[in-house]
Amino acid sequence: MNNLLWPGDERAGDLFSDEAFLAAMVAVEEAWLDALAGSGIAPAAVAKLDLQSLVGPQHLAVVASASERGGNPAAALVDVLRAALADVNADGAAWVHRGLTSQDVVDTALMLCARDAVGVVGAALREQVRLLAELVERHRRTPMVARTLTQHAVPTTFGLKAAGWLTGVLDAYDATSALVLPVQVGGAAGTLAATVELAGDLDDPVGSATALSLELATALGLTASTPWHTTRSTMTRLGDAATGCTDAWGRIATDVLTLSRPEIGELSEGAGGTSSTMPHKANPVLATLVRRTALSSPSLAATLHVAASDAGDERPAGAWHAEWDTLRTLLRRTVVAAGQTTELLAGLEVRTDRMAATLEAASDAVRSEQGAMADLAGRAPSGDYVGAADAFIEAPLARAAGVLA
Amino acid sequence: MNNLLWPGDERAGDLFSDEAFLAAMVAVEEAWLDALAGSGIAPAAVAKLDLQSLVGPQHLAVVASASERGGNPAAALVDVLRAALADVNADGAAWVHRGLTSQDVVDTALMLCARDAVGVVGAALREQVRLLAELVERHRRTPMVARTLTQHAVPTTFGLKAAGWLTGVLDAYDATSALVLPVQVGGAAGTLAATVELAGDLDDPVGSATALSLELATALGLTASTPWHTTRSTMTRLGDAATGCTDAWGRIATDVLTLSRPEIGELSEGAGGTSSTMPHKANPVLATLVRRTALSSPSLAATLHVAASDAGDERPAGAWHAEWDTLRTLLRRTVVAAGQTTELLAGLEVRTDRMAATLEAASDAVRSEQGAMADLAGRAPSGDYVGAADAFIEAPLARAAGVLA
Amino acid sequence: MNNLLWPGDERAGDLFSDEAFLAAMVAVEEAWLDALAGSGIAPAAVAKLDLQSLVGPQHLAVVASASERGGNPAAALVDVLRAALADVNADGAAWVHRGLTSQDVVDTALMLCARDAVGVVGAALREQVRLLAELVERHRRTPMVARTLTQHAVPTTFGLKAAGWLTGVLDAYDATSALVLPVQVGGAAGTLAATVELAGDLDDPVGSATALSLELATALGLTASTPWHTTRSTMTRLGDAATGCTDAWGRIATDVLTLSRPEIGELSEGAGGTSSTMPHKANPVLATLVRRTALSSPSLAATLHVAASDAGDERPAGAWHAEWDTLRTLLRRTVVAAGQTTELLAGLEVRTDRMAATLEAASDAVRSEQGAMADLAGRAPSGDYVGAADAFIEAPLARAAGVLA
Amino acid sequence: MNNLLWPGDERAGDLFSDEAFLAAMVAVEEAWLDALAGSGIAPAAVAKLDLQSLVGPQHLAVVASASERGGNPAAALVDVLRAALADVNADGAAWVHRGLTSQDVVDTALMLCARDAVGVVGAALREQVRLLAELVERHRRTPMVARTLTQHAVPTTFGLKAAGWLTGVLDAYDATSALVLPVQVGGAAGTLAATVELAGDLDDPVGSATALSLELATALGLTASTPWHTTRSTMTRLGDAATGCTDAWGRIATDVLTLSRPEIGELSEGAGGTSSTMPHKANPVLATLVRRTALSSPSLAATLHVAASDAGDERPAGAWHAEWDTLRTLLRRTVVAAGQTTELLAGLEVRTDRMAATLEAASDAVRSEQGAMADLAGRAPSGDYVGAADAFIEAPLARAAGVLA
Repeated sequence: MNNLLWPGDERAGDLFSDEAFLAAMVAVEEAWLDALAGSGIAPAAVAKLDLQSLVGPQHLAVVASASERGGNPAAALVDVLRAALADVNADGAAWVHRGLTSQDVVDTALMLCARDAVGVVGAALREQVRLLAELVERHRRTPMVARTLTQHAVPTTFGLKAAGWLTGVLDAYDATSALVLPVQVGGAAGTLAATVELAGDLDDPVGSATALSLELATALGLTASTPWHTTRSTMTRLGDAATGCTDAWGRIATDVLTLSRPEIGELSEGAGGTSSTMPHKANPVLATLVRRTALSSPSLAATLHVAASDAGDERPAGAWHAEWDTLRTLLRRTVVAAGQTTELLAGLEVRTDRMAATLEAASDAVRSEQGAMADLAGRAPSGDYVGAADAFIEAPLARAAGVLA
Repeated sequence: MNNLLWPGDERAGDLFSDEAFLAAMVAVEEAWLDALAGSGIAPAAVAKLDLQSLVGPQHLAVVASASERGGNPAAALVDVLRAALADVNADGAAWVHRGLTSQDVVDTALMLCARDAVGVVGAALREQVRLLAELVERHRRTPMVARTLTQHAVPTTFGLKAAGWLTGVLDAYDATSALVLPVQVGGAAGTLAATVELAGDLDDPVGSATALSLELATALGLTASTPWHTTRSTMTRLGDAATGCTDAWGRIATDVLTLSRPEIGELSEGAGGTSSTMPHKANPVLATLVRRTALSSPSLAATLHVAASDAGDERPAGAWHAEWDTLRTLLRRTVVAAGQTTELLAGLEVRTDRMAATLEAASDAVRSEQGAMADLAGRAPSGDYVGAADAFIEAPLARAAGVLA
Repeated sequence: MNNLLWPGDERAGDLFSDEAFLAAMVAVEEAWLDALAGSGIAPAAVAKLDLQSLVGPQHLAVVASASERGGNPAAALVDVLRAALADVNADGAAWVHRGLTSQDVVDTALMLCARDAVGVVGAALREQVRLLAELVERHRRTPMVARTLTQHAVPTTFGLKAAGWLTGVLDAYDATSALVLPVQVGGAAGTLAATVELAGDLDDPVGSATALSLELATALGLTASTPWHTTRSTMTRLGDAATGCTDAWGRIATDVLTLSRPEIGELSEGAGGTSSTMPHKANPVLATLVRRTALSSPSLAATLHVAASDAGDERPAGAWHAEWDTLRTLLRRTVVAAGQTTELLAGLEVRTDRMAATLEAASDAVRSEQGAMADLAGRAPSGDYVGAADAFIEAPLARAAGVLA
Repeated sequence: MNNLLWPGDERAGDLFSDEAFLAAMVAVEEAWLDALAGSGIAPAAVAKLDLQSLVGPQHLAVVASASERGGNPAAALVDVLRAALADVNADGAAWVHRGLTSQDVVDTALMLCARDAVGVVGAALREQVRLLAELVERHRRTPMVARTLTQHAVPTTFGLKAAGWLTGVLDAYDATSALVLPVQVGGAAGTLAATVELAGDLDDPVGSATALSLELATALGLTASTPWHTTRSTMTRLGDAATGCTDAWGRIATDVLTLSRPEIGELSEGAGGTSSTMPHKANPVLATLVRRTALSSPSLAATLHVAASDAGDERPAGAWHAEWDTLRTLLRRTVVAAGQTTELLAGLEVRTDRMAATLEAASDAVRSEQGAMADLAGRAPSGDYVGAADAFIEAPLARAAGVLA
């Protein structure tokens, strides 16, 4: 999967691609059929059917095209599956999708794709925690000037700046780790009535039907849940967590962009980007692309919230549909930015000489506060005026150690 | 505090008003001065000073006006405090604000105001959990038609619909309860250097200085923290949690608006609003105003995320400033919508007769799926076809019981 | 091009696809080379080169992949072109892209793709104006109840409701028609210095260089312009106009969704969508998908505004990059919704009997205002109380006639 | 009116304050009563009534409080007016508001407040055009380095940079000048039925009623219009134009912030802001506050679009209500940023020596492209390599002259 207009997109590979989503929907139907058979609701002949072999990229166009009339891609997929099964497994053709509604398939498939994307993001965050903890340790005593409202303020250390980056990444890691990705199993309107009806000959039709959520969750590696057709906090939490990641990275990128300006030159990307016409340029291209993402994510997350608040009836007309591609775009971009940030941090060059030189040049000004404080305390100024910089890095380092343990 | 253009605004009373924010800033300066004295950094004469008595609404205009030149309202407040202290407590005048930076005062005051707002929201959510749990219990067997994409789908119960509302409110309650509201104590650039300098005569200047975060937190009822000047997850979590609330309420409002249409008439607000020209109308005005909020919150939360990702240097030029009024507006509106939703739920009239009549009229159509399932299972259709509706309400009821315990 | 997660996406065909964008970039390079030759700046041997034949879908992956390091896809394309030209036209290889910067190529290619999308949207809006004008005329005297805050208010006509839809579409048409899509020709930093340098032997190097903007515009069917590298109103106007379209359509969709509820039944989509499990359902799927778009567009337009305001230096690091895929997504979705709305309007079934029945049933209530007015005027109520409904449709019909003339 | 959390807010004075909005609503009722009398619909005794004297700030709290139950502030105001008129003019009490609906009063009052805000913004934009035209002229030959992706690119002039700023401001001026602010006169559901009923004894009730839109528009200084209760392009255009302004200013602020970094020092605010703790700092506070606004506006405009697309029925339940405070906030902030930008530009200090020094230091690198071009052209490099910088300023200067003429 490529995207000429989102450089770096191929970092996300096939995650949440149409192909991946189609396969995820098939996985849902397959696991459901298996669960139906396992519970005794459907005949044993539909157990362990290999539906994935029946569907492939060749079906993308027909499913996509038919999805407009059905309003979503699940119904069209069911048609494909039924047709393919008709010749090979009549029971399968009869039982596929029974008990489910399109939203069950789409939402659960979204969660499968989200899980894969979140997994990649989580691993990247861990690696960033490692890289940043090293950076903090290495530069815990590297002096530099602190800047507020663009102007020189007082001395600080690059270790403390990097500790701030680390704290942001840790916050993003915590939020991402806390995500719960549930299966959606509710039937036409969240009552699971069709499945209960199908289970009518069992001792406990309702119990048998509701147990299938756990079966499906176990099979697919998701979490069991009561239906959440119109309770969309699952989606908004994903959006908020992803945006929390791009916030944390965007802030790092913003710092890198500022500090790699040639007049400042305190940081640089190890291997900068190229220019189509100016051979001398080494552009901070990773930081640029990360910042791009950070500027774009909040709006996508906002759309998920608008959709959540508009989720009326037992399935809303439009709000649900607005979520799918929004979530996909947001998560793919998050995966891309995750990789770019890791690479940025891994290759970051810290020019301690430039930091020292800037601080030296600004010395009189950035020590003026110290003088005022010393006057107030009735003493001569003491030391380097970096205060508790060294102490403040301990808390994020401890959190980092916890993550990496 | 009123807002003609946001009906219901007075429900938020003085929460996060300019007056409240000014008092919160004074509380920060007062507690800080006390902590400085308590630690032995400042003279004992500045302990337990009553700064609140020195500042009042009469200073709002001058502080507001001066805040443009200082870029924030803290510096102007310090000028007011110093002038007022000059005659009564020279030590106080000399020591007020020492060690802090404007951002410490503004951010901590924002957290104080946020805490009060979040407290009101949390209490409202609890009350809504109680009301909704009752509603779910009462209507666990009230049949109605489920609607998907605006059309009749299959039977459900109003108890299950209300259980979905409850789940949303519980999700919002969990997110709101998990919020951590820290003090901000970092000095000019997050190193606490000024305070360490002031503590130079103590045995452990750094330890004494950093201990003040806990002192301040304890005094103000907030959480201790290392400085978070440019790590703004605190702000985005507040925004996300508030929007999670308005999502949950907005979805309820959307349902109420639909179901109180005269052609449907299954729900109505106990006491509808009035019309300026049509005496017969009873408008669902609470649901209308709640939906208004739900449509507006996501954008405000998005602004907090954009600001977080742009938080460069040791204090960003603009991104930080964009947060203040955005957070205030978002939280006040959340408080207002909290009260409106509680009132809406408390007064909600459920027309079980209309629900039954609609379901009866739609019976053939909404039973068609049941027929197909029964055919597949090789049996006659059984029962009311509400499936696991009754079972699915148990989980949210159990969560509700946990909240209310 | 398909998009499983945005049903109906194939309505946009190849518009703004990666393939189309690649071809558009090639068209820019080709026209530029031709213009250089035509002006005497480059050798005649580079005129009328067929660059399109050198680049095809087989280059998508390599250009996409290389675009991350270059920060944009133009530099990678230039490498492809140079390599391909090396064997066949050494002058072409030497002169391709000379004088341009990546942003010139990307921005102008974006405008080419936008032009095609806007053209389709404009044609759809015209067709909608035609359909709506007919609908207004046909139903200028079709009585129905007006609804405010979901409740019955007073009588109106469906013609007047449709005239409101028409006005919205006309407003969208005006904004879309007013869009200006300029070429971008500025060189590395908007001074066109490289081209002026290349034109150094001509009588008027600056005049010859700046004249190329018009040459390029004429060749490509765009508008000449001075460089707008960091003046991004072009992008925000596109975003605002597109969102203006989806606003107008979303409002129609919202009305259709409400009025096609079974309890109301005054409108229906001619051919509703299908359900994967409930044979009786005819879902208002076009309105659903249009509303989906309307809920999603505003956020994308907001991202374009954030990017515009962050366009610092002579090329911003991130803000520019955030625009490309955002614009593409917004415009493709607008094209899709354009087609869906046209189809929705063309097939809309108006149930005048249901409208009449609703009005009749609500008669006492919706005439109460009339009674009060008649009392005030000291007369008996007169007529049908639709006031100036018929008069108010004339203005939009006249505007429509102007568009269709 | 102050806003501690939006420094500079008092620049907007009373524009769009609650007091101003209340007075605007009264102005609408007054002008309507007068128009009713003038047309012969209402008795002559209600002409030229001075309603403003009956309502003042003392009514704010009661109107605000009552507005929740009515859903908007107009109904509560009508109660106040009727009560006040009861003793002094029984006809006035009977006729006030007759024929109007709350939305007519609220929307027209919004337009009155918007007109005043837009007027201030327009005047500021004109002044900025003047200041920028001067800046462009003065610095048309001031060399500086152009920066792309934060890195030095090629030479340019500060005149050309300022010309880019000017173009943005001109674009904002054009959009602002094109705004049309209409009265809203539609009655309960946009049919004006009540007024037509009241006019029943006149020769042409419909003509007499619809003519009142023009009467009202003339009296209030707005534009006549058919009702636009649910066609909200008026609101979105206002939002888009305001955001277009803050985009243009935000981009200037972004440049000023970058170029006033001490390491660059090519620009500075004439009178920088102060620090609460660091005496040496001169913060670019105006640019900071302008950038704050630019980061915040797009989300507010997005809310207006969401509301427009959700404007169903003859008055939507929530979407309309979301507009009011959003528009007010957006426009007040735009007024504030307008003044801040004007002041920023008026006081901007241009350090041509620093510009020259940076360019000189970067000379080898930023001339590398020139060398490559000269090689290609087979000549020695010529001149200063600022290309058409001087030519490109002519077009914006000509536009500026048109505005200032």
